[in-house]
Amino acid sequence: MKRDDLLISNEIEKQAWELLEKSIVYYQGRPIGTIAAGEASQLGLNYDHCFVRDFVSSALLFLIKGRYDIVRNFLEETLKLQPTQNQLNAYTPGRGLIPASFKVVVNNEQESLEADFGEKAIARVTPVDSCLWWIIILYAYVKASKDIKFALQPEFQQGIMLIMELCLATRFDMYPTLLVPDGACMIHRRLGIYGYPLEIQSLFYAALRAARKLLICAGDAEIVRGIDNRLPLLQEHIRHHYWIDIHRLNVIYRFKGEEYGQTAVNQFNIYADSIAYAKLARWLPKQGGYLAGNVGPSQLDTRFFALGNLLAILCSLASDRQSQAIMNIISEQWDDLVGEMPMKICFPAVEKEEYRIFTGCDPKNIPWSYHNGGSWPVLLWLLTAAAQKTGNISLAQRAIAIAQSRLSEDEWPEYYDGTRGLLIGKQARRYQTWTITGFLLAKELMRQPNYLELISFGEFDLNNASRSCDL
Amino acid sequence: MKRDDLLISNEIEKQAWELLEKSIVYYQGRPIGTIAAGEASQLGLNYDHCFVRDFVSSALLFLIKGRYDIVRNFLEETLKLQPTQNQLNAYTPGRGLIPASFKVVVNNEQESLEADFGEKAIARVTPVDSCLWWIIILYAYVKASKDIKFALQPEFQQGIMLIMELCLATRFDMYPTLLVPDGACMIHRRLGIYGYPLEIQSLFYAALRAARKLLICAGDAEIVRGIDNRLPLLQEHIRHHYWIDIHRLNVIYRFKGEEYGQTAVNQFNIYADSIAYAKLARWLPKQGGYLAGNVGPSQLDTRFFALGNLLAILCSLASDRQSQAIMNIISEQWDDLVGEMPMKICFPAVEKEEYRIFTGCDPKNIPWSYHNGGSWPVLLWLLTAAAQKTGNISLAQRAIAIAQSRLSEDEWPEYYDGTRGLLIGKQARRYQTWTITGFLLAKELMRQPNYLELISFGEFDLNNASRSCDL
Repeated sequence: MKRDDLLISNEIEKQAWELLEKSIVYYQGRPIGTIAAGEASQLGLNYDHCFVRDFVSSALLFLIKGRYDIVRNFLEETLKLQPTQNQLNAYTPGRGLIPASFKVVVNNEQESLEADFGEKAIARVTPVDSCLWWIIILYAYVKASKDIKFALQPEFQQGIMLIMELCLATRFDMYPTLLVPDGACMIHRRLGIYGYPLEIQSLFYAALRAARKLLICAGDAEIVRGIDNRLPLLQEHIRHHYWIDIHRLNVIYRFKGEEYGQTAVNQFNIYADSIAYAKLARWLPKQGGYLAGNVGPSQLDTRFFALGNLLAILCSLASDRQSQAIMNIISEQWDDLVGEMPMKICFPAVEKEEYRIFTGCDPKNIPWSYHNGGSWPVLLWLLTAAAQKTGNISLAQRAIAIAQSRLSEDEWPEYYDGTRGLLIGKQARRYQTWTITGFLLAKELMRQPNYLELISFGEFDLNNASRSCDL
Repeated sequence: MKRDDLLISNEIEKQAWELLEKSIVYYQGRPIGTIAAGEASQLGLNYDHCFVRDFVSSALLFLIKGRYDIVRNFLEETLKLQPTQNQLNAYTPGRGLIPASFKVVVNNEQESLEADFGEKAIARVTPVDSCLWWIIILYAYVKASKDIKFALQPEFQQGIMLIMELCLATRFDMYPTLLVPDGACMIHRRLGIYGYPLEIQSLFYAALRAARKLLICAGDAEIVRGIDNRLPLLQEHIRHHYWIDIHRLNVIYRFKGEEYGQTAVNQFNIYADSIAYAKLARWLPKQGGYLAGNVGPSQLDTRFFALGNLLAILCSLASDRQSQAIMNIISEQWDDLVGEMPMKICFPAVEKEEYRIFTGCDPKNIPWSYHNGGSWPVLLWLLTAAAQKTGNISLAQRAIAIAQSRLSEDEWPEYYDGTRGLLIGKQARRYQTWTITGFLLAKELMRQPNYLELISFGEFDLNNASRSCDL
């Protein structure tokens, strides 16, 4: 880097740290999280909440800087919001769930926390990802602080167990994946991601990896057996059924339909006509590949979803070979997947009739905007982490340079629009905290790659998996 | 009826009864069910199975004729196939599920039953409806035979409890409805009915009604409390959010989007542009209405689904006023909903891009064929029962006359195609058992309306609901 660039870079980082400091939410005098957006927000919306998924990058930064207290307070307070009773009820959050967000409210000069489990959210979507992210943050906290005692407290062990029970419980279907309603994760509006979306499956796998380590330290055997049952099945299911590269596309393209019985090759009865196979064949680089967005009965969503793919690399849900192929497709299809702002939340956007049907005509998710093919700076840290894990440092450097050239000047918007991410998001808030922390965290991970271990897991091999506490 | 018509009618019924007799499946010398189709079937497919959902109309006929043994054997044998262990596992059927189908297999001259929970089915769909139908059949058996002791046996009480636990358990979302994957019911292929399809909700409500009565007789209080919690919430949710008539369409048409918070009117954030409101406004008769096919985040499926609507009338999930409005729309839109064969499984068919996206290009579900706007004779008995419950006898007579004029001549096909049902289904089996029993059951219900009570429930009012055994 040239001297001038370095000065500018330092200046931007300094500003970002100051903004992060200002975003900290205090509750009864203690810091407990970060607010979603710093820009004065529209009345009646929820940008003044602390979102669990938004806090992830803040948490990792605080842990890297040794500010364990904020993360510890966050974990303690959100845990208190987790329902612990089995209700056999409806319209009350399920036992084990962690809210999407919370805010501090003041009544008669008494502060209290108000949680939102989706019962107030637009379209009443349920945040399935929160409880999975919560375990991942807890693991990172223990890993960074070495404070395993914190996670061994009975209420924390119970919190982990309830989440595991909710996720591992018997449901109607027989897949190892989690069935969720549309919009149950970072994409929290309808976008055709009902069923078994990749993001949820990657988060589930990462949470299982983290929970396993945390529970083993407490000596809990039964639930660990449940986790050990699920991990290999989930891994195999995703690596096989979700994988798309030119070889796999060749197989899918020649699938026979209507196969009955256990010898069926086309187990999900996918019809190749439902896939834009010609476009896809042209788009796939020889050495590249990625995990599909969703797989279900006669359903193969071939959109590329960034968070699910990057997280699959970090938690080794994708194999080493697949991880390299994912990084390779990002590099080879850079204009489509990164363009002028790292990086696209999904590609391509759904347009025309697909837009109408998938989103229900959602004006916020018009083609190449917001969740529907928009670019989200927060993904920069995940791209950087995945690049580092797979040894593609230059790719991360290139992405960070692009982000640095625009984010501060554009006042840290929530998202960007357009096929290349050249437009500031139509309804984007400015000073969005996870835009700021995504950038800072990418920087920190470049400087101190050892912190990758807070969020990264090696290949899981049931036969050689440790059964003693190594935290 | 004229004398000649009567003779023909008697002749057809006689033939139908003989075909039903031939369809009976024997296991270790005892009758235990009926085969799906009498026509010699393609190798490798499953028309030689006994399907739980297909057996419903057979069971009701056997009960009406006092042949309790077949139904009792069916209930006993299918119960033995229900998994009772909690697996925290995957690729094994969930605790409480009842298989979609079973068949008798012979190994070394030993007969055994082989169940299919969807693990062998095309596209690996899970039959969520089976366990709900199973409870409904059990209730009808007790009601007809007065043999309450049968249902009080510990293994039967456990069977009901496991199904209730599976259905009432806490899940990720907070709706009183059941979240299921696409194709989890009679429509067992992808057709855009993922999420909260009406058919499953109607079955769920009917099963809750039946289970409540069966469990109260055994004196079980806790699970009855769970049922009593759910029934009013589910009823209110469906009656409010699923209802469509011209008044409600006016409200939906003027919905505001993006409402946050508990005072939101447009709770599911439905955008009117996603609905064919102009067509729908023209189609809705002044006094008619129906329950929508599905409601979820930014999703309102305005297709009319026959089974869900008719069953909602029978179990009083729909209010009296709504039930009359549903019968009225069937009468006013007779050509679309009944046409030349009672009746359409859903209306209208999805076509063009919607067909491609909803079905994944399923060649069996092309527009106006099979599940996608095809006509299913089995629905005749449900139409007849609903007509009787609501006092629309002439409507049932008209439908039965249409069916009678074609079914026998066409050799009892599984389904019909075309906008008016004039074509025998493209891939329909002949001598489909539930086509035969659907017709016979409609006839029996016309002759002996008192048997409606086997499958019908009055309005549920929590405050006045009986807490003592009245079976």
